Amino acid sequence: MENIPNILAERYASAPMKDIWSPRGRVVLERDFWIAVMAAQRECGLDIPEEAIASYEQVKEQVDLVSIEKRERKLLHDVKARIEEFNALAGHEHIHKGLTSRDLTENIEQLQVYRSLNLVLVKVVAAIIALGRRADEFRDLLITARTHNAPAQPTTMGKRLAMFGQELLLALGQFERLIANYTVRGLKGAVGTQVDLLTLFGGDSDKVSAVEQKIVENLGLPKVMRNVGQVYPRSLDFEVVSALYRLSGAPGSFAKSLRLMAGQEIASEGFAEEQVGSSAMPHKMNSRNCERINGLRLILNGCLTMTAGLVGDQWNEGDVSCSAVRRVALPDSFFAVDGLFETFLTVLGQMEVFPAVIEKENKKYLPFLAVTTILMEAVKSGAGREAAHAAIREHAIAVTGDLRSGRISENDLLDRLAADKRLGLSMEAMQAILKGGHSLSGSAPAQVDIFLKEVSELSKRYPEAAQYHPQGLI
Amino acid sequence: MENIPNILAERYASAPMKDIWSPRGRVVLERDFWIAVMAAQRECGLDIPEEAIASYEQVKEQVDLVSIEKRERKLLHDVKARIEEFNALAGHEHIHKGLTSRDLTENIEQLQVYRSLNLVLVKVVAAIIALGRRADEFRDLLITARTHNAPAQPTTMGKRLAMFGQELLLALGQFERLIANYTVRGLKGAVGTQVDLLTLFGGDSDKVSAVEQKIVENLGLPKVMRNVGQVYPRSLDFEVVSALYRLSGAPGSFAKSLRLMAGQEIASEGFAEEQVGSSAMPHKMNSRNCERINGLRLILNGCLTMTAGLVGDQWNEGDVSCSAVRRVALPDSFFAVDGLFETFLTVLGQMEVFPAVIEKENKKYLPFLAVTTILMEAVKSGAGREAAHAAIREHAIAVTGDLRSGRISENDLLDRLAADKRLGLSMEAMQAILKGGHSLSGSAPAQVDIFLKEVSELSKRYPEAAQYHPQGLI
Amino acid sequence: MENIPNILAERYASAPMKDIWSPRGRVVLERDFWIAVMAAQRECGLDIPEEAIASYEQVKEQVDLVSIEKRERKLLHDVKARIEEFNALAGHEHIHKGLTSRDLTENIEQLQVYRSLNLVLVKVVAAIIALGRRADEFRDLLITARTHNAPAQPTTMGKRLAMFGQELLLALGQFERLIANYTVRGLKGAVGTQVDLLTLFGGDSDKVSAVEQKIVENLGLPKVMRNVGQVYPRSLDFEVVSALYRLSGAPGSFAKSLRLMAGQEIASEGFAEEQVGSSAMPHKMNSRNCERINGLRLILNGCLTMTAGLVGDQWNEGDVSCSAVRRVALPDSFFAVDGLFETFLTVLGQMEVFPAVIEKENKKYLPFLAVTTILMEAVKSGAGREAAHAAIREHAIAVTGDLRSGRISENDLLDRLAADKRLGLSMEAMQAILKGGHSLSGSAPAQVDIFLKEVSELSKRYPEAAQYHPQGLI
Amino acid sequence: MENIPNILAERYASAPMKDIWSPRGRVVLERDFWIAVMAAQRECGLDIPEEAIASYEQVKEQVDLVSIEKRERKLLHDVKARIEEFNALAGHEHIHKGLTSRDLTENIEQLQVYRSLNLVLVKVVAAIIALGRRADEFRDLLITARTHNAPAQPTTMGKRLAMFGQELLLALGQFERLIANYTVRGLKGAVGTQVDLLTLFGGDSDKVSAVEQKIVENLGLPKVMRNVGQVYPRSLDFEVVSALYRLSGAPGSFAKSLRLMAGQEIASEGFAEEQVGSSAMPHKMNSRNCERINGLRLILNGCLTMTAGLVGDQWNEGDVSCSAVRRVALPDSFFAVDGLFETFLTVLGQMEVFPAVIEKENKKYLPFLAVTTILMEAVKSGAGREAAHAAIREHAIAVTGDLRSGRISENDLLDRLAADKRLGLSMEAMQAILKGGHSLSGSAPAQVDIFLKEVSELSKRYPEAAQYHPQGLI
Repeated sequence: MENIPNILAERYASAPMKDIWSPRGRVVLERDFWIAVMAAQRECGLDIPEEAIASYEQVKEQVDLVSIEKRERKLLHDVKARIEEFNALAGHEHIHKGLTSRDLTENIEQLQVYRSLNLVLVKVVAAIIALGRRADEFRDLLITARTHNAPAQPTTMGKRLAMFGQELLLALGQFERLIANYTVRGLKGAVGTQVDLLTLFGGDSDKVSAVEQKIVENLGLPKVMRNVGQVYPRSLDFEVVSALYRLSGAPGSFAKSLRLMAGQEIASEGFAEEQVGSSAMPHKMNSRNCERINGLRLILNGCLTMTAGLVGDQWNEGDVSCSAVRRVALPDSFFAVDGLFETFLTVLGQMEVFPAVIEKENKKYLPFLAVTTILMEAVKSGAGREAAHAAIREHAIAVTGDLRSGRISENDLLDRLAADKRLGLSMEAMQAILKGGHSLSGSAPAQVDIFLKEVSELSKRYPEAAQYHPQGLI
Repeated sequence: MENIPNILAERYASAPMKDIWSPRGRVVLERDFWIAVMAAQRECGLDIPEEAIASYEQVKEQVDLVSIEKRERKLLHDVKARIEEFNALAGHEHIHKGLTSRDLTENIEQLQVYRSLNLVLVKVVAAIIALGRRADEFRDLLITARTHNAPAQPTTMGKRLAMFGQELLLALGQFERLIANYTVRGLKGAVGTQVDLLTLFGGDSDKVSAVEQKIVENLGLPKVMRNVGQVYPRSLDFEVVSALYRLSGAPGSFAKSLRLMAGQEIASEGFAEEQVGSSAMPHKMNSRNCERINGLRLILNGCLTMTAGLVGDQWNEGDVSCSAVRRVALPDSFFAVDGLFETFLTVLGQMEVFPAVIEKENKKYLPFLAVTTILMEAVKSGAGREAAHAAIREHAIAVTGDLRSGRISENDLLDRLAADKRLGLSMEAMQAILKGGHSLSGSAPAQVDIFLKEVSELSKRYPEAAQYHPQGLI
Repeated sequence: MENIPNILAERYASAPMKDIWSPRGRVVLERDFWIAVMAAQRECGLDIPEEAIASYEQVKEQVDLVSIEKRERKLLHDVKARIEEFNALAGHEHIHKGLTSRDLTENIEQLQVYRSLNLVLVKVVAAIIALGRRADEFRDLLITARTHNAPAQPTTMGKRLAMFGQELLLALGQFERLIANYTVRGLKGAVGTQVDLLTLFGGDSDKVSAVEQKIVENLGLPKVMRNVGQVYPRSLDFEVVSALYRLSGAPGSFAKSLRLMAGQEIASEGFAEEQVGSSAMPHKMNSRNCERINGLRLILNGCLTMTAGLVGDQWNEGDVSCSAVRRVALPDSFFAVDGLFETFLTVLGQMEVFPAVIEKENKKYLPFLAVTTILMEAVKSGAGREAAHAAIREHAIAVTGDLRSGRISENDLLDRLAADKRLGLSMEAMQAILKGGHSLSGSAPAQVDIFLKEVSELSKRYPEAAQYHPQGLI
Repeated sequence: MENIPNILAERYASAPMKDIWSPRGRVVLERDFWIAVMAAQRECGLDIPEEAIASYEQVKEQVDLVSIEKRERKLLHDVKARIEEFNALAGHEHIHKGLTSRDLTENIEQLQVYRSLNLVLVKVVAAIIALGRRADEFRDLLITARTHNAPAQPTTMGKRLAMFGQELLLALGQFERLIANYTVRGLKGAVGTQVDLLTLFGGDSDKVSAVEQKIVENLGLPKVMRNVGQVYPRSLDFEVVSALYRLSGAPGSFAKSLRLMAGQEIASEGFAEEQVGSSAMPHKMNSRNCERINGLRLILNGCLTMTAGLVGDQWNEGDVSCSAVRRVALPDSFFAVDGLFETFLTVLGQMEVFPAVIEKENKKYLPFLAVTTILMEAVKSGAGREAAHAAIREHAIAVTGDLRSGRISENDLLDRLAADKRLGLSMEAMQAILKGGHSLSGSAPAQVDIFLKEVSELSKRYPEAAQYHPQGLI
């Protein structure tokens, strides 16, 4: 029977992420773990020769899945099969001493999670840096801000991008704290009491603790739990997936906004070189990658529901009702978030902005957006407040009606206001207000600068992120 | 790079379900669809020779994924690649006339859904029949019904099973109605206006409708939509997945109850032949399969969230923000529900019940469960209602306390009541009440009979379900 | 302490829906139920005088919540308090014979659900009829269909509305089937064995069944369950909420599309009379009601998650871990869906369409949308296919670039094509193709007619829906 | 029309939590906020007299909802109505200068969230302390640990409780970090550019920043955002609700385990004084409060879905499609989590443990749980490993079968092993192994001590939590 591939891994995830969650990658992680255990046990007095550990180290990348499967069919036990295979390759029998299957599997899955978290971290930072680049580029480009999808007040394109940057910075903060505090189950035995390890170390609980601590350090993990049952609490998986999900917020809102901007033709998500001119319909700005970002968020939301269902459902020391769920939800969450950020980075690299179209939109709406200022100036110049307000409202309604009915095709509000004696403002005076477009955007450029400062600090902390380039999309 | 398998398909789903959603299976479905389109177009006057259709029919099972991929790499278009491959195999060029890619893909995915629904249907009916078999077997076996996980009143094991059967019957009703009313998008073109097909048939809209109708009939589908955009409404996918999810209710509650019963040792999920005696801890009744049933429900719940997110999110005539979601959620829903029912059927076949332990539990609790009847009898025989009630309460509290503190190890409530003159009932009189255990179970056996009647009618309507045997689990 | 109101009921739900779920409304429903039970018990031979039932009937609307609460504080039992109050009002003691609390509460909650379902049904049909009215009005209004939020091919506004109508018709079908098959728990006692009712009727199970059947008929409910425990299966609640959720699909997609159309100023959700001209910014088409529709869908999604969590979680004969969940999720689901349809109906009544702006958009994009037809005509007139295709592509890319860069402000593709000898088509020939705009919309108007036929049949089946008017929104 | 109460607030939440989210409480919060704004504006040079601020301060608790509603009906604007009321009470007109409605509402809702978070924090810590108290009490009480709901190995009751304590400690860590980093939107105007405040301060952006900073400090909030649109990013609301949800993990697993233990009669959730002896069925240990804990988790899960739907759905500078959702999900999340911890604390205070029943269970299972040790000892004493293993397996299977079939009623495995020469172990030798029961529990007591140390440090950091007592439940 033909194998059915994991579609998320195949279509969206990057190679390093697939590597962590692949059958082969898992075998290597297990071997890393067993080696860390042996090293720690040796340091704590167990008789495991250094050369033996070296032998294991030397063969750990030799993964033969077919051979392992053969052993499994013979032994009817998957963990035993992988133990035997590794022993056979190394020519020793020192791994898995005093461990139960859960001591292996729980920690390996946490290692997969932890390494995946660090992989995602780099891409999140890279995305913030890319947002910074674009926010800087469009720092002063005046655009018509929209609330309720309707023109509201001026802002700048750079500020709009910095707004998504702010959201991602907040999510990054949570994400960094999650990683710094990630805690693994450690070696606890079948129900959490470490009874087998204690036996191995002749009841010396200090040594057992020391072994655990060393392993965690060897593997570069931050912390170890103290009180668990057969399994670590699944609310930790939920914390991970909910943090991943939250990361999708800024890219998601960015993607929706870009799909809207593309619909107005003020921006597009851009295209890879080879796509350019592939169609007789070049006007069609299909935001396929942005749509993909929005789709991948929903997949994460599904994984969130799966892990949410594991929270508060441990019966005494635990069982495997979570097994199928975690087999699906953990890798799929990481494949989805990985694909999401790969796509986001691609779009940030390729997106195009069309100032001429933006200018046209501004021209159409600015007279409306400036009415409050015009009113203030009219009053300053001696107009009666109520009369001026009535005049403005009257003309604004009429212009809107005429534009929508097609009676006029350009916004001529200023002409009408200039002609109305109730206001007493000349055309020049009003145009001067609109010319001061940039002051209409208030703190927007300065806010971009604040964002850029944070980006710059981040770039220093994560130099590899500043260099990161997304893989090509399919 | 090694391929990462879909874990749900690999571990839990049955071969026929995998076949529908495999890359190969999809190619065959597409070819079935193209053939149905050609047949319909020919009948409506298009010049497509009968021999050409026969040639396509002859080669439709020859699926060479490598060759298709080669073509795709050359053409940079997946649908075109599959068209060319099929044409090359058949030696004709008559497929896909007047169609857009969406005319193919939307309908194929709905075909996959429809065929999967029918596959699941058989297993649901098979599960009801299996529940019937077991309910019949234990129709009269008196057990201690529990509410709030505490002993409440007597019932029978058969009735408990029939209770889950009732829930599944209700879900089946909805499921059958869903299948009978399943509606496909049909041939509608890029934005739903059928403009290309109309061109193909010289503007004759009657012919276009006729072609659509014939295709649907050829493929055995119930109904076709009339007004769509680029895509069919995704709330239909939600209807499908929510119906699948609902199907998980009865198996889920059954599985949880069996896990509870196993904890009390009154039943176990049983074991396959080869598992017997594999352990030195035969007392350990690990309900791994029941736990799996509970886990697979959560995966379905995640898929439900994914498809729920597509509801009410169509922008005008549609886009592909749903694409990644449906690629994951549709097959995974069916793999999960398929695995769930395979597991449920296995457990229903293997489950064991331990009457001796049940008898022991009944003996422990029946005196408590019978107090209401004892009170009535005491009053009938002349005891004062208030005095009798006070006496019973007093002794019941004392017995409970003594049992929990270990002062006694057997429930001696009847002895104490017999010794209390306020009640005036002999030991014999009270034992007679308890002996009438079966009348204490009220309508339970009769309710089982009602369920069995429905099962029997169902078996006649679905003879293949009565014969269905689950595949082996891993 | 001040009472905190249910915000969904207060702000969004209609008075009749609030009435069903209000404390007072529930008391009345319970009394209806008790009266139906007495009538059935009397018919089956229990000694309950007709005048007694009449007395209960006479006082059933006299609900004094303060008096009931006083009784509850004395009795420490809510059901008993309501029994005593009703008895005191009627001057008899015939209600609740042979019933347990669950016989009351389960059936009452199902009655609330059932009556709410029927209330929603009318509004769903009313919404389809309103969509029909608008689809008819704009049957032939040519608009630029959008896929990926980018102009794709022509369609008509009426067809776009009929597309949402199709989705709602599909959801209505499921909803009608749900209502027709809604099944209530009936009278089953504490663990489902009817032991108390059997005692009441001297063990005559036929009479017990007859009583149940009569009650269900008296209350106008479709069906009764046969095998239950303490509670009815909660997957039925899930079926209800998932059907409500699905109903939100068409309004949701309509609302998002209208928000998009408002952003392009081709339509707006309209305003109530009193809102007109309230602002100096009349250009601002805030789609607040459409946004509300999209928000209420999410609340339904939350309720869906809550009821989904109850599926497959019954422990043996049941418990009350579902209690808090159902207290929240059932009324809130109905308040949300009720408010959603009230809002949808309001928008359908008030929405405005701006043909002049639509015309302008069509003019801008039609040349692009017609390129396929132009190519076909050019080849017919003798142009080489490859050369013609290259010419079109070249000019289309150039025009798009010039429009976006602001070098031109009107789409002059036709002029450029007319001037290119590779095509050999005159300006007149090309304008003739564009003039045939309506044939470019393919089956769209005919599809609207199919929808209108279904609407017309529906109006006949539900005359009260055709007359339904939404309440005012806040 | 009668008001429909928020059922979560009414039945489950505590008074202080209701106060924050009540209509009255919100008015007071707004007034606190306005006062903080005035104070900051005054410090930064705006002409607002100190006495004016004092006047506002003096009347801020005088909340007359009826008067406010009257004003609203006249003004048709809710924020304006509340401004006028406060001004009228204080006899000044200095509030809301340079602010838009969103500057008020966004920050107020964040204040409600922030104060609620701090209220929950105390209860979480109190729950950990209560778990510590109980873990200490049962530190050494040997129980039969269960995996897959089946007896597995010995542990202690204290360790089981410490296991839930560990989970809650992990969640607390995340929760404390969330609170310490909670960031508010601040004063940003209609689209985030601060244009009105800049005007108020004559374009001096440093002053605008200073005002914002001071307000945040006055209100005791940790941080302020820099780049936002009309609204703050809703992924922050998701972070809050997901952290609340995670908090439900440990109480949820504890509650399920206690429901299981009650089913085995080894523990019960206990009862309030007034409930004692209220029933003639004292054996019935209904875990109603634990069931409630499990139910409230699901409500939180529904709120999680609601806020998850807001993530990644901001269109440009924002709209109010999130409005209805946040009105429901934010207060309901806090009411649910508050009720959950009130219930959890009550159960932790009242729970009972029955050592005699536990002892009986241990006696039944210990022979099985000790087989691994017996095997080791047998081999040590000279038995052949394979023969000894076969003997043990044979007898264990036989004993299990005899127990389940009722042939024996006590576990006599040790007798059978003592009689089997293949093992060569005396009864005394084996009983010695079982007597060493406490060493069979491995590190369990030491792990409890580690937990207690963390509890002790926590008690010092949160002295008010150590004193907290839950309100009475209904």
